Amino acid sequence: MKFSNRANNAQPSPIRETFKYLNDPEIISLAGGLPAPELFPVPEVRQAMREVLEKDARGALQYSGTDGFRRLREQICARMEKAGIKNATPDNVLVTNGSQQALSFAAQIFLNEGDTVITEAISYPGAICAFRWSVPKYKGVPMDSDGMDIDALEKCIKETPDTRLIYTIPEFQNPTGITMSQERKKRLAEISGKYQIPVLEDNPYGELYYDDCAQHMSVKSFDRDGYVIYLGSMSKIFCPGLRVGWVYTDNPLIHRKFVLCKQTADMHTNELSQRLVSAYLDDNDIEAHIEKIRALYKSRRDLMLKEIDKKFPKSAKVHKPGGGMFIWVTLPENLDTTALMEEAAKNKVLYVHGEAFCVGEIKKNALRLNFSNMPEEKIIEGVDRLGKLFARYTK
Amino acid sequence: MKFSNRANNAQPSPIRETFKYLNDPEIISLAGGLPAPELFPVPEVRQAMREVLEKDARGALQYSGTDGFRRLREQICARMEKAGIKNATPDNVLVTNGSQQALSFAAQIFLNEGDTVITEAISYPGAICAFRWSVPKYKGVPMDSDGMDIDALEKCIKETPDTRLIYTIPEFQNPTGITMSQERKKRLAEISGKYQIPVLEDNPYGELYYDDCAQHMSVKSFDRDGYVIYLGSMSKIFCPGLRVGWVYTDNPLIHRKFVLCKQTADMHTNELSQRLVSAYLDDNDIEAHIEKIRALYKSRRDLMLKEIDKKFPKSAKVHKPGGGMFIWVTLPENLDTTALMEEAAKNKVLYVHGEAFCVGEIKKNALRLNFSNMPEEKIIEGVDRLGKLFARYTK
Repeated sequence: MKFSNRANNAQPSPIRETFKYLNDPEIISLAGGLPAPELFPVPEVRQAMREVLEKDARGALQYSGTDGFRRLREQICARMEKAGIKNATPDNVLVTNGSQQALSFAAQIFLNEGDTVITEAISYPGAICAFRWSVPKYKGVPMDSDGMDIDALEKCIKETPDTRLIYTIPEFQNPTGITMSQERKKRLAEISGKYQIPVLEDNPYGELYYDDCAQHMSVKSFDRDGYVIYLGSMSKIFCPGLRVGWVYTDNPLIHRKFVLCKQTADMHTNELSQRLVSAYLDDNDIEAHIEKIRALYKSRRDLMLKEIDKKFPKSAKVHKPGGGMFIWVTLPENLDTTALMEEAAKNKVLYVHGEAFCVGEIKKNALRLNFSNMPEEKIIEGVDRLGKLFARYTK
Repeated sequence: MKFSNRANNAQPSPIRETFKYLNDPEIISLAGGLPAPELFPVPEVRQAMREVLEKDARGALQYSGTDGFRRLREQICARMEKAGIKNATPDNVLVTNGSQQALSFAAQIFLNEGDTVITEAISYPGAICAFRWSVPKYKGVPMDSDGMDIDALEKCIKETPDTRLIYTIPEFQNPTGITMSQERKKRLAEISGKYQIPVLEDNPYGELYYDDCAQHMSVKSFDRDGYVIYLGSMSKIFCPGLRVGWVYTDNPLIHRKFVLCKQTADMHTNELSQRLVSAYLDDNDIEAHIEKIRALYKSRRDLMLKEIDKKFPKSAKVHKPGGGMFIWVTLPENLDTTALMEEAAKNKVLYVHGEAFCVGEIKKNALRLNFSNMPEEKIIEGVDRLGKLFARYTK
């Protein structure tokens, strides 16, 4: 059987692969990036769905335009203002099946085989795996507590003339939880214009801040040259099963390529779900809903940090994330979290091994823990099980 | 701005591009392949949705497995039996956003830049445009009233050693309406094994037969070697706005590639819609529903054929399709349907120009007319407007 180079190069998402364990009800999963389902606004969803199916069921069930439901695109423009993106028009928004689909489109649009994509040195495997379908080279740029090192990025660009895309998660990065400073965001936007390299700004967690009073400005908000492409999602602030996200670019050439890609990929995003999201946003105060999510996740984050501090090896290094869904832990050097995964699963607890996130240099002694999905008692029990496992292997 | 070769090669779907006219309520569109919305089973959809949101709303709104909702995949296996596909298991079914998404996946999985894909010489532009993202070469194989000429296909394969994919719509082909004979289906399945070239069997219209008493056997039903990949869809027999289709292959290597492609493309298909379709199928007699669709479309087909016979130039050649949604008309040689499109739109009637369907040799004097979407009076009026337009240019 002859497959394309791309298909031969494809690898499973290490996060998605942990889903196979989830049928076991005894498993405590600190692996996936799942929202807390108890916060899904079920009565409001039922009401919004009733409305959509009362108002224009036939329209909601028929083929529709590739760009997406227009009212929803207007609402998306309004939401982006909180990230400092002003004057966005619905004509520049394309609704996608979650921001994951926009990641896969970006790879198709910008990357030939062998081209380079630059990412943070530790980054989201779902993006890395999506880019693999273009068989690119990867360069990872180191981060510190202010995010991607922009000097190192510029050096990397100069050394790598075939760089065609820069990928970043500037807010509460997956997996490290690090947020890029405003100063660096400005510089990143400038660099994208100076070198004419598109920046893919993936921002699913920007509204899930726990220590600040407002959403941070996006890289896009500092973009003067039209090279920053902004990806947003309803998955973390509403319901991921609906697969509704978007890509926004004010560069008409880029927007057109995304639309063409969407046309052939699946024609348009599920119309019923787009109208459901739109009706929900019209009828409800989503800010109040997100406030509830923040309150719960903040308390779960704090609980998990406390439990890690009690139960993990004393030499473990933990980054306290200001938002998002994940805690990144670096264990003593001799611990190999990839090798320990099977034993963890036997002990009915799941995490994502650090190796899965490494672009370039592989570090085997880190792991990502999710604190949004599990109730408090399972967070306590899960961290306890991991603590005992790691203790057995800590010299 | 540097785009990939693929993005530079991309072209809009000529069918999707006609959608821009649809905001004009006076337009009579005989262009797109839209189902008749008045047949959408709206009360049953409302009831099924209520059930889904009563039973397990959180499950329906959460991230889920990449393969798709298991109960739906079981139901899909049962449906495929009507096309002669026995003993299919849900493990071999991947739910996609309509079969369009499976087309785009197949291109990514099988085609390197410059590889050849063989299609019917007149074929579906949505597939051709999806394949373009792999920058392939195309070879078109002629058809007669029994479908693709299999001798010509085999000759083409022998002459084209870089053939990596064969694409066919064997039932009520889009756009010609031609159905492949059972004898040829058998031979096509054999050839796929003999030359180890995957056949992509796209079958969205198989259940929409108007002159027969049962669904025809699929190419897949004759496959002994696992090289035939079957694409099915709920879009034409239920509701396209939900974007629910599937890809079935009993070859585990191929299935795995499709699953990896889906993981990175958008993680999984909209869970709420999958459960909605599943609940609808459990609660209702979809056969009775499809019977209603057949009755209406058959009468619209017959009406359109009658009107074409009355209003079009006498030298026009019309193929009477045994099912599906389209009538393919070949006009006198001097008529250029591409050039006439703008004038048609001014006259408030749309069709798809024949050129859009041509793989290889371009024929400018044909057009595709859809008979499923418009009510009877608009079919009459639309064909009348076109007849007058064509009469003005017929020598």
